[in-house]
This record gives sequence, structure tokens and C-alpha cells, in this order.
Amino acid sequence: MNFFIKFCFLFILPTTLFSQKIERIEPKNWWIGMKYNTVTLLLYGKDISDLQPEISYPDVLLVNTEKSENKNYLFLSLKINPTAKPGIVNIIFKKNGEKLLTKKFPILKREANSAERDSYTQKDAIYLIVPDRFSNGDPSNDIIPNMLEKTLSRKDENKRHGGDIQGIINHLDYIKSLGFTQIWNTPLTENNQPNYSYHGYATTDYYKIDPRFGTNEDFRKLVYEAKKRNIGIIWDVVLNHCGSEYYFIKDLPCEDWVNLPKSRTRTNHLKSTITDIYAAKIDKEEYTDGWFDNHMADLNQRNPLVAKYLIQNTIWWIEYAGLSGLREDTFSYIDKEFLSNWTKTILAEYPKLNIVGEELSRNIAQTAYWQIDKKNTDGYQCYLPTLMDFSLNEQVISSLNRTDSWFSTWRDVYQSVAQDYLFPHPENQLIFPDNHDLDRFYSRINKNFEKWKLGIAMYTTMRGIPQFLYGTEVLFFNDKAGSDGQRRSDFYGGWDGDSKNAVTRKGLTKEEKEAQYYIAKLLNWRKTNSAITNGKFMHYAPDKNDVYVYFRYNDKQKVMVILNKNSESVLLDMNRYNEVIPNKFKAKEIISDQEIIVENTLRISAKTAMILDVK
Amino acid sequence: MNFFIKFCFLFILPTTLFSQKIERIEPKNWWIGMKYNTVTLLLYGKDISDLQPEISYPDVLLVNTEKSENKNYLFLSLKINPTAKPGIVNIIFKKNGEKLLTKKFPILKREANSAERDSYTQKDAIYLIVPDRFSNGDPSNDIIPNMLEKTLSRKDENKRHGGDIQGIINHLDYIKSLGFTQIWNTPLTENNQPNYSYHGYATTDYYKIDPRFGTNEDFRKLVYEAKKRNIGIIWDVVLNHCGSEYYFIKDLPCEDWVNLPKSRTRTNHLKSTITDIYAAKIDKEEYTDGWFDNHMADLNQRNPLVAKYLIQNTIWWIEYAGLSGLREDTFSYIDKEFLSNWTKTILAEYPKLNIVGEELSRNIAQTAYWQIDKKNTDGYQCYLPTLMDFSLNEQVISSLNRTDSWFSTWRDVYQSVAQDYLFPHPENQLIFPDNHDLDRFYSRINKNFEKWKLGIAMYTTMRGIPQFLYGTEVLFFNDKAGSDGQRRSDFYGGWDGDSKNAVTRKGLTKEEKEAQYYIAKLLNWRKTNSAITNGKFMHYAPDKNDVYVYFRYNDKQKVMVILNKNSESVLLDMNRYNEVIPNKFKAKEIISDQEIIVENTLRISAKTAMILDVK
Repeated sequence: MNFFIKFCFLFILPTTLFSQKIERIEPKNWWIGMKYNTVTLLLYGKDISDLQPEISYPDVLLVNTEKSENKNYLFLSLKINPTAKPGIVNIIFKKNGEKLLTKKFPILKREANSAERDSYTQKDAIYLIVPDRFSNGDPSNDIIPNMLEKTLSRKDENKRHGGDIQGIINHLDYIKSLGFTQIWNTPLTENNQPNYSYHGYATTDYYKIDPRFGTNEDFRKLVYEAKKRNIGIIWDVVLNHCGSEYYFIKDLPCEDWVNLPKSRTRTNHLKSTITDIYAAKIDKEEYTDGWFDNHMADLNQRNPLVAKYLIQNTIWWIEYAGLSGLREDTFSYIDKEFLSNWTKTILAEYPKLNIVGEELSRNIAQTAYWQIDKKNTDGYQCYLPTLMDFSLNEQVISSLNRTDSWFSTWRDVYQSVAQDYLFPHPENQLIFPDNHDLDRFYSRINKNFEKWKLGIAMYTTMRGIPQFLYGTEVLFFNDKAGSDGQRRSDFYGGWDGDSKNAVTRKGLTKEEKEAQYYIAKLLNWRKTNSAITNGKFMHYAPDKNDVYVYFRYNDKQKVMVILNKNSESVLLDMNRYNEVIPNKFKAKEIISDQEIIVENTLRISAKTAMILDVK
Repeated sequence: MNFFIKFCFLFILPTTLFSQKIERIEPKNWWIGMKYNTVTLLLYGKDISDLQPEISYPDVLLVNTEKSENKNYLFLSLKINPTAKPGIVNIIFKKNGEKLLTKKFPILKREANSAERDSYTQKDAIYLIVPDRFSNGDPSNDIIPNMLEKTLSRKDENKRHGGDIQGIINHLDYIKSLGFTQIWNTPLTENNQPNYSYHGYATTDYYKIDPRFGTNEDFRKLVYEAKKRNIGIIWDVVLNHCGSEYYFIKDLPCEDWVNLPKSRTRTNHLKSTITDIYAAKIDKEEYTDGWFDNHMADLNQRNPLVAKYLIQNTIWWIEYAGLSGLREDTFSYIDKEFLSNWTKTILAEYPKLNIVGEELSRNIAQTAYWQIDKKNTDGYQCYLPTLMDFSLNEQVISSLNRTDSWFSTWRDVYQSVAQDYLFPHPENQLIFPDNHDLDRFYSRINKNFEKWKLGIAMYTTMRGIPQFLYGTEVLFFNDKAGSDGQRRSDFYGGWDGDSKNAVTRKGLTKEEKEAQYYIAKLLNWRKTNSAITNGKFMHYAPDKNDVYVYFRYNDKQKVMVILNKNSESVLLDMNRYNEVIPNKFKAKEIISDQEIIVENTLRISAKTAMILDVK
């Protein structure tokens, strides 16, 4: 520190001139005509809490000014009447009656039909991308000098690899060609942490795309380019925690902004405490308030200012970027009253918007607890539309891998789906062979391609909303079980000079090509079949012949799916299925493209899936 | 066939004199003052259906006479008004106006307080006996000449071994000394099947004790002798099926008396079809209507005459023998509307009577479906008070056997019990280390006596009604997993000349003696502690120190249970438990009989259970 700076600190900084710069206003803007029309701005800057804000803008009122324990924060609530006109609200800050500075807060016109936007449903198929590991479309943003993580190495599974938004944009045609209609990216917000920041779940700025991925405008461009291809973009929301390097974690607005800030006690991961009538209070608290990880601060959503900050942020991204839906991370770890409030508020604003919550549990009763319209015995009501079906994910592996059983090996799948009565809206479940937190599907079935095809045929036709992790279409695998790095390995051809390329098919094996073709064929077909996109589901108990048969159907269309795991062909007696279908019918078998006539019996080849689009 | 008999068939049998003998009237009697006061008598005899019954008895009315397809059956409904006096109702049978024969039907006075009898609850501990394998108290009834199974061999695990009711009576003092207050015997009704009849689940006469076990009066004597020792007797009801040699199976009253009588299709065992919104009708039918086994006819309880027969039979045994409660076999395999009716009717008659249903499932939501007051989404309501906790049974084994885990190995138990919110009455669950259909507890934990003690300490203090299979108190085991014969091996000393004797302790190993003492001590203590017998339950999440701590408590008493599976002692910080208990308290440790003073910390020895009766 040179003499001049020392001098400044001693004599100049204490004056109002320097000390009362407002560094941040969040959100950056709001919109006219929102149901959520009183927006609470978080203002951050040194010693700003004694500033006196004033506004003068037709139909916009400053309804509340709130201080927190920390003098560096001020919270202003603006009520924006529906009659307000778009423009810039000037917020004038005075001190002792003297005007010190002015900040601009834009209020904008909404996009047409913003509230009524469509979202993802069973009609869709979701492509899940871990952006850092997908494609490096812009090498110029690989390393950002001022950010804490300084190095990049594709050889290190914990470091950044350089994937970015431009890389995703470059692959939109490829993704569309596979038949996907939605993309879920793991979080794109800034994660300015010193280490292990690539995954995106340790946000350090909820309002900013991480510069290694691009800019906020780049993200809007991705949404725009995707929409041109009828692809929606699903935003990954992280409400439970944020990165320890977040400015408001390093300089807490108040003691209760986060939970257990001093001890940083880890969560006990005991989801059961949510509903357990016997659980000790301390265990319930440690589940919800414990930290997910040492560098992830557990936000206290019981603090109304935290709650508003998070709710507004979600709405802001939907409205700003034109999102098609949400995915919410580590769902049940969050304060449950806040979850009720957050889901209710988002759905009030966007009634058709889908949100899938990550309740990483195979306990179906526990998972169903969160779904909208669920009548829980404790009276709790969340408004979450969609859950992830981790039970099915597990049972598919069990069914495919088990070889001998007193009963059919398919019973694991059959009995998992049979628990759907616990859900008010069972069709609103995400179904997935793998995701970024699970071992790759192909690995879990020991790289057996026949089993892989049986599984994919099921995931593309089963009730629910199918979701595939990038690379699953070209048989990505992780030889080391449990390795996040291997689960999230670099997409083939995402980097210049890659020896394999999933788009050009350079270097792909015969099976990888066939897999890609198989998924593309099924996804592109399923879009066109209303029995799949909004039909009902009915299944038959797989018996000792170890064949699983189910139907998708509505008034107009009927699809019969037959999954034969046996090493021999099996002859089905069609009498069994007369509740749904006559003994004699014509159909097109989707995988083989063959027109067939079924009469009384149907032979299905060994280790084969048949998908009959009934005429 | 000699000439005379041939002659009779040809010339004499067709006359009314011989052909219209009524062989059976079931039930054998009824009582005055029952809520169920219209009793439907099943009459069986050759060509009796055209007989015209008449009665003349004050306040008893013949309200209905019903024929079935088979001329050998007649069903009479008698309404017994509360004002009727005990006595013998003469039922006169006429044909063409001519009186042919008279049958006597006793109507009896009920025992005092019969309707309000107490039953088993958490205050009790149940001793489960497989009577054929327990003790041969009366060798004279070992082989009954006219019965179909002709041989007896203790060396053959599928044949009868000779155990009987007198053997149980002989052991009542022993059972009482162990601290048990209830005995559940597997079925004692006649199983006159040619093979494999010892288990009792293929009834051939619902109104008769199997002669190999004794007489109906012997059973009443057992109840009487048990009651003298404050022990109740629980009756094992089998509503789903009966033996193929039952007279009404060999000579069906009507085609729909049983389900699928021609195909004898086996049940698919798919409990999930009960609630599955996607299940095919044919699969639902095959679950409920399929036969449990080829020699067990699946009764059609949708036939109102079958339903009445079964309901009356249950009431008859309760009233006749003075039962303290019921256990119902293969619960969900039975028609669910009938189950609702059966449970409702029994409870209307005996409001405090407990019934435990065997829903052999580890799917807790599926199990809770049947409990009284459960609000099911499909609107179904059963009135079953108690379920068996097969989930806990499984998870105790998992917790005890697992050695390494990211979390505490006790979490399996903790998370199983945590699902109790799904039950309207979670305390009404049977908890058991083993039963006659499961591998022996001691085998499942690889004969580790320290684990055995931890498990028994848990089962005697956990919420629910503990039940132990005979022999568990002396470490019975089955080396061959899945072997019913070994699971149900002969009780030590149940037969004259046995080298080991559990009562006299002759030949018992040191550990077997210690085990017996351990169970007796805990059961005799638990009877006296109201926190256990009717208190609440609360548990603490077992953390990485792998100790499970829970409390039983009410306004007056408090019990702290600590289960340490570690190979080292563990020091507990008592601050953690302040929601229930202060840091400093006095207690008696029940297992060691030591008075201790706890202050801030508590050390628990390696591989030890502590049960602190707090002062």
C-alpha cells in the first residue's frame, strides 16, 4: 500500500463521497403486469443503510425501506401498478436531506403471453447438459483473469474443461435431430469459487451467467436459437445453498441470512426427518439447516428477505430469458414452508410452467409428499408439479441385471411403477436412465447393448417425461463407479481436435452409431404419437416368461410395448391383453419399421423390444 | 363292494329315510345378545335341499331359507332376538308336509363382558408357537387312524412331529416365566390333508381342532389355563383358502364357492395390484383369486354365503373359546371388500379386540393401506387394527449385519421406523425378530450373540407389539436358509427323551441360558414400565458414531435406549438429548441392574445395549 492510498483510507474514505457508492441493485429490473408486483430490491454498498431513498415515477411506489444488521445493505420495496409505463425509475438517495446519488431501475414491458407460456410435459424429451463438459464453442472465455479459479485442464476431472453456451448453441441442430425438445443445463450462473467450480451448484451471483460460459445475453441467444428449433430451455435453480464466495455470504446482511454460519455443520442427509413423527428437533434442523458442503452456504429461507431474493430471482430469469421450465436442486433440503411459498408463487405467475424437484430418494411415498394436490397426513402442501423417478431408475437396473428369480426379473420395474397411486399426478415424473449425479446407464448394465436398447425403448415409451444425459445417445460410460468426473466426461467432438465426434460420427463405433440412431428414431417418433405424448398407461404383470408388456393409449391411438429380456424368443398369447386390444390387429413396429398383422399370438425375438403402433 | 352294499345303493338309498340325513350344521351353536344376531346355518347332507325347515322357539325366528346349486346344501338364517332365553332350538325338517327329522341348535348365554374383552396391545409380548413342533404332551393323539396323513416322523421336516395342545398347556408356566402375556398358535383347526398337513394352513374343518392337537374342549382348557396365568390366546384365522380335502371343496355348494376351481391358477403374489392404477384386471384377479397352493382352495368371499360362513366362524371361536385376539393369514390375498366387512363386523362385536393382518410386504405404504382410519386415495377403508412390521424385520438385519457405511449402519432401522407417519395408528404394529415363515433371527445375524442381544433389546423396547417365535429365547437357528423345516424345528425338551430341554435348561449352552435369561428379564421388566406399555416413541438420528438412541416416554416415566454396535465404547454428549432429558439424571440400567448417575456425558461399552429407566 503506497502512501497515497494510506492517506485516502485515513482521511478521505470516511467521507460520504466514497463510502456510499451502491455497488449492486438486485434484481436489475422488473416488469409491469406481474402478479408479483411488489419487488424488493437488495442494495449493497459500503455504509449505505442510512441513505434515504426517494422515487417519483407514475404508478410506481416505494412502499417499504428496510435495514438489516449490516450497514452495507438496504432493502427497498417498489410496488409497480399495472398501469405503470415502461421506463427508468430514478431512485434518489439522500442523506440528511442532501441528495447524494441516483440509481436507475428499469421497469419493462413483458413479452406477449409470457404468463401463459407452455412448458415441458410428457410430450417432451429432455437433453441434460453439463455445460463445462459439453462443448467449447468459445475458447476466448476459457479463463477469466479476475476469477478465483485460475487454471483449466481437460485432464483434471475437477477443473474446468472450457465448455460454454456457444458450444451448446453450436449443437442445437444435433440435439434437435436426436428428437429432443427441451434442454436442461446444469447451473450456468457464476460460480466464482477457487476450486471445483465447474459443476455450477455453488453460485456466487444469482443474476449473472458465469463468464466462462458466456454472458447473460449469450444465454438469451441460446434460448432464442433453441426456440427457433422448437426446443425449450429448462433452468436449474439452486435455492438451498450458494457458493461461500458470494458477496452476501462473505459480508452477511444479517446473522440469520444463512443457517449455522459458524459451525457449518453438515446436513445429515436424512430426508426421513421431513415426515418422521418421531424425529428429534435437532435432527430435523440438521437436515434442513445443515450445509450441503463446506463451500456451499446454507441459505435461511425463513428470513423473509432471503425468501424474496430467491423468489424474485427465479421469476427474473424466467421473464428475462424466456425459459420453458425449471429444475430445482436438492429439493427437500430447503425449508419446507418456503418451498410451498416458492412453488405457489411461481405457478401463480406462470400457471403452465413445469418445475421438477430433485428429491433424490427411492422411497416413493417420501417423493410423492411434495407433489401439488397431494393430501398429506400432516396437512403440508407443496405445489411442485413434477418429481424425479429415482425409484424407476434403480429398478430398471435391477430388472435388467438380475438373471434369475422366482418371479420375472421385470417385476422390479413393474412394482415400482405400480406405486404411482401415491402421486396425484403420476404422469408428472421425470424418467431417466442416468443424470449427472448417477453412474452412466451403459456402465450400470455392464455395457450390454441389448439391455441398453431394452432400457431406452422403455424410457421413451413409459409414462412420464424422459430425460437423457448428454452422451447417453453414444453409449457414454464411467468405468469407475461413483466418479463424477467420468459421469460427466467431455462430449465427443465438443472440443476442436477431438478424435471422436458425435455430430459428424467420426470415430464412433458401430454400436455407438446404432445407439444414436435408436434414440433419434424413438424420440422423433414419440413426438408424433398422442398415445405417448398425452395418453394413459396400463401394464401387465410380467410372469415367468420374463416379458414386460404395457400399453399407452387414448381414444385415438394405442401403442403396445413388449420387452423381452430372454435369450429365446417368446410366443405371447394375445388373449391375455383383451382388456385393451382384440386378438387380431394390424400395427407398425416402430424400431424395425415393419408392418405386421397380429392374430391370436405374437412372437417376440430374444432380447428385443417391440413397439407396436396399433392401426 | 359286497353284494349287500350294492343292493343298498340300488334299492334303499334313494328313499328319503337314508338320503336325508343332515351330517353337518355349522356353526354348531350361537349366542344370545350378539350384534351379529342373524346367524346363517350351513346344513350339509345328501339331497337335503328340498327339506322344509321349521322352528318354534320364543324370540328366535327362521328368517330365510336358501338353496344353492348343489342339492346337498341348505342355508337357514335364524334371527335371535336379545330377549331370547338360552336353550335348544329344535329345527324340524319336513318334506311334503311330513316331518322327517329334527335337529338341535343350542343358543347360549354369553360369558360376562364377552363383548368388552381386553386384547393384546403394546403392553403385551407374544409367544408364537407352531404346535406340531412345540411339545408332544399327549402321545396318544399322534396318529389318528381315520385321517389321511398316516405317518408321523420327527426326522422328516414335512411330516407331523406330534406336538399338541397338551404340550402347550404343559409349558404355560415356562412361557409365563419368560414374561410373555400372549400366545399365538399357528392354526389348530383340522387339516385332514394327505401330506404336509402339520403347518395348519390347509383347514379341512373350520369348526374343529385337529385331533392330532386335541379336541375343541382341550383348546378351551388351554385358554382357561393360560388365562389363569394372565396369558391370552391369539387365534390364527385363515380366510383366504382352505384345504382341498374340505368337504365343501370336494362337494362344492355352488360353482362360485371357490375361485378358479378348475384351473387352480396360482396367485401371482403381486400385492401391488391392490392399489396399482395401471394394473390389468386379469392381474388383479389372479392376485386375489389365484390359489396360494395347489392343495389350498381359494375361497370366494364375494359369495355372500361364503362371507357369512367365515365371519360367523371367527366370531364363534372368539365366543366359544374366549380368545384374546386374532391373527389373520395372507391378508391382502383376500377379496378386499370382504376384508373391510370382516374386520368391521368383528370390531363391531368386540370393540377392543386386536387383529393383526399378515401383509408380508416391506413396502410400508402398501402395508399401511389396510389399517383402520387410513385415508386411502382410492377411498378404500379396512378396519384392521394392526399390521406386521416386515420392513423393520428386514432393516434390523441389514443394520446389524452391515459393517461399513458412509452413514451409520443403524440408519436402516431409523429410516424404517421413520415411515410410521403413513400409519394412522403406528403403535399398532407387530414387531418380531422372526416368525414361522422367516429365517431364524440368530441365523440371519450369523450367530453373533452380541448382535442378538442388541436386536432383542430393541425388539423389547421399540414402539409396537413384540412377538417372538418359540425357541428364539434359546437361540434357535436354521443353518439352511429358507428351510421351513429348520425354521420350525422341535422345541428343546418338547418330547420325552430330548437331549436338550429349554425348561429344565438341561443341555443348554452357556449362551442359550444367557439368552433365555436376557429375554425373560427384559420382558418381565417391560410389563411394569408404562413408558413402554403405552408411552410415546422418539428417536435420534444415528450418526457416524453408529449408536442408535431412542426414548419411550409418557408423563410419568422415561426410558432411554442406547444401542452401540461399535467394537469400542462410545462417549455420548448428553446435550444432544435435551429435548427429552436434562444433562443430569439418575437411572437404573435394566440389563445390568446398575443404578447410575448421568452427568453431561455417558459412556456406553462396545457392542452393548443400555436401557435406562430414568428416575
